[in-house]
Amino acid sequence: MRLALINRTGGLEFLEDHIRAACPGTRLAYWPSDAAREAEVAICWDPPDGTLADMPNLRLVHSIGAGVDRILTDPTLPDVPVCRIRDDDLAVAMGEYCHWATLWFHRGLDTVTRNAAAGHWHRFEQRPASQVPVCVLGLGDTGRHVAGRLRDAGYPVRGWSRSPHEIPGVVCHAGPEALPLALADAQVVICLLPLTPDTTGILGHATLSALPPGAGVVLCSRGEHLDRAALVTLLHSGHLRGAVLDVFPQEPLPADDPLWHEPGVLVTPHMSALAKPRRIVAQIAENLRRLDRGDPLLNRVDRARGY
Amino acid sequence: MRLALINRTGGLEFLEDHIRAACPGTRLAYWPSDAAREAEVAICWDPPDGTLADMPNLRLVHSIGAGVDRILTDPTLPDVPVCRIRDDDLAVAMGEYCHWATLWFHRGLDTVTRNAAAGHWHRFEQRPASQVPVCVLGLGDTGRHVAGRLRDAGYPVRGWSRSPHEIPGVVCHAGPEALPLALADAQVVICLLPLTPDTTGILGHATLSALPPGAGVVLCSRGEHLDRAALVTLLHSGHLRGAVLDVFPQEPLPADDPLWHEPGVLVTPHMSALAKPRRIVAQIAENLRRLDRGDPLLNRVDRARGY
Repeated sequence: MRLALINRTGGLEFLEDHIRAACPGTRLAYWPSDAAREAEVAICWDPPDGTLADMPNLRLVHSIGAGVDRILTDPTLPDVPVCRIRDDDLAVAMGEYCHWATLWFHRGLDTVTRNAAAGHWHRFEQRPASQVPVCVLGLGDTGRHVAGRLRDAGYPVRGWSRSPHEIPGVVCHAGPEALPLALADAQVVICLLPLTPDTTGILGHATLSALPPGAGVVLCSRGEHLDRAALVTLLHSGHLRGAVLDVFPQEPLPADDPLWHEPGVLVTPHMSALAKPRRIVAQIAENLRRLDRGDPLLNRVDRARGY
Repeated sequence: MRLALINRTGGLEFLEDHIRAACPGTRLAYWPSDAAREAEVAICWDPPDGTLADMPNLRLVHSIGAGVDRILTDPTLPDVPVCRIRDDDLAVAMGEYCHWATLWFHRGLDTVTRNAAAGHWHRFEQRPASQVPVCVLGLGDTGRHVAGRLRDAGYPVRGWSRSPHEIPGVVCHAGPEALPLALADAQVVICLLPLTPDTTGILGHATLSALPPGAGVVLCSRGEHLDRAALVTLLHSGHLRGAVLDVFPQEPLPADDPLWHEPGVLVTPHMSALAKPRRIVAQIAENLRRLDRGDPLLNRVDRARGY
C-alpha cells in the first residue's frame, strides 16, 4: 500500500520512523510529489484544498489528530472514508490542563501571579469549588472526561453539546437555544467543541455576554471557535475576568501578536493535549490492516456531522 | 467567661462579631489591656513571649489556626491546655492549591507562563502523571488529603512524616533517616509539616540536594521550614526547577524582597488555605462550652510533639 504524508506547512517527518516500523510493506511519500499523488492513503493534518481530489487511487484519508476540520472544509474532498485519532491519554492530558485553568480562575491564581510580578501581597476571600459552576462546551470523549474530572473535584458542572448527552452528576444541555441556559451561572467556561460550520465563532459577543460577570474563558480544541474582538471587548469592559487560550487560527501565535500581553489573557502554545507519535501511528496502522481486509474502520468520521 | 484576643501585630478584629454571636455571655478584650490580662481564655495567633504567663486566670489557650508554633515557642508558656483549629475545608483548599502547583511543574506551566510574558511559543514533550512522582512531607489531616488527591490524579505519591502512617496507594516513610529515600525520585516535593524545632530549616541544602535534578518545591504551612539561601543556590545551579512559595518567616513578604523576582520562584500570599472566621469561632465556642462543663477539649495539642 502506498501512503502519502500531507500537510500544508510540512513538518510531518516526526511520524516517518514510526510508520516504517508499524506499517511494514507500505511505501511512504511526502506531498507534494508524484509518488504522493499516486498513494491509496492520505495521512494528513491540513491538506490544501484540491490535494485529495487530485489523488486518483485514494481509498482512505486519515487525520493525525482528534480533529478533522482542516480536512472536511475542502469542498472538493472525495467520497472516501475519513478517520481520526482517538486517544484516552489525550482526554487525560486535556483534563489536567482544564483542571489547572479552572483553578487558575477559581483560586484567583491569575490575579496572584499578576500581583507577584509587581511584588504585591494581597489575598482575598476564598470560595469552595461548590460555589464555582463550570460549563463544558462539547461532550465528546474529551469533554465527558473533563466534565467528570471537574465534577469529582467538587465543581457544579454544566455541559452543552449539539446532541443530547447524559453524564452522571452533570447537568447536560443540548442544542443552540439551550446554550445561554448552560452558561447562565458559569464562572468558568471550557470550550472543547469540534470545529464545524455551526461552531465557528460560537464564542462571540452574544455567547460571552451570556456568562455572568467575572467569568473566565478556557479555549482548547480550535482557535476559530472564538471571536477574538468580542473577547477583548468584554475583557476591557470588565464583564469577563480573563481567558486561558491554547489554540489560535494561526499557530504558532506570532511573537508580536498583542494577545500575548492582553491583561487577563494567558497564551499557552497548543499544549493542552499532545498525542504521542507512536500512539498516532498505531491507530493508523490498525486502520490500514482493516482497509486491507475490508473490515470496518475505527474512528471513522461522520462527514455530515463534521466529527 | 472572659476572653482575650491576642496577636503581636493585632488585626484580629475580623473575629469579633462572630465571637459575640457564637459565645453569648462572654466578655471580650483586646491585648494589650488590663481586661485582656484578666481573661480566662486567650484566643491568639502569635502572642509575644511572656504575654500568656502574665495572665493569672488563664485556663485555655486557643489558636485561631491549624498551627500552634507561634504559641509553643514561648518558653514561659503556662501549663494550660492549648487547642488548635481543625477544618476539613482547609484540607480541601490546600489540596486544590497543591494540585495546581503540581500541575504547574508537571505540565510545564511555569515555563509556559514565563514564555508567554516574552511572546515566545514553545512546546515540549509531555509526561503522563504516572511518570511524575510527588513527595508529601507531613501526613496530618491535610497531608493525607493532599497525598490522596494527587494519588487519585495519577501521580505516584510518596509520603514522609515523623511517625509511621499508612495511606492506601501511597508509599509512606517515617523518621529523619528515611527522608532522602522519600525524596529520591520526587519531581515535586510539597511541604505540609507542622513547625517544630525538629522541622525548622528541614528544607536545607542536604534535603533539597536529595531531590533529583529538575524537581520543583511547593512550600505551604510555614516559611521557617525552608532554608532560603539553599533554595536560591540550588535554583541558580540548575539542580532545582523552581519553587511555589506560599509562606514566609515574615508575612507579608516585603515588596522589595528579591524572592518576588527570583527566576523560577512564584510567590503567593499565604493563600493556600484560609479558614472562614465563622468556622474558626464555631470551634472555639464549642471548646468554651466544654471548658465550662469540664468535658475533654477538642483538637488539643500534644505539647511534647508540638502539634
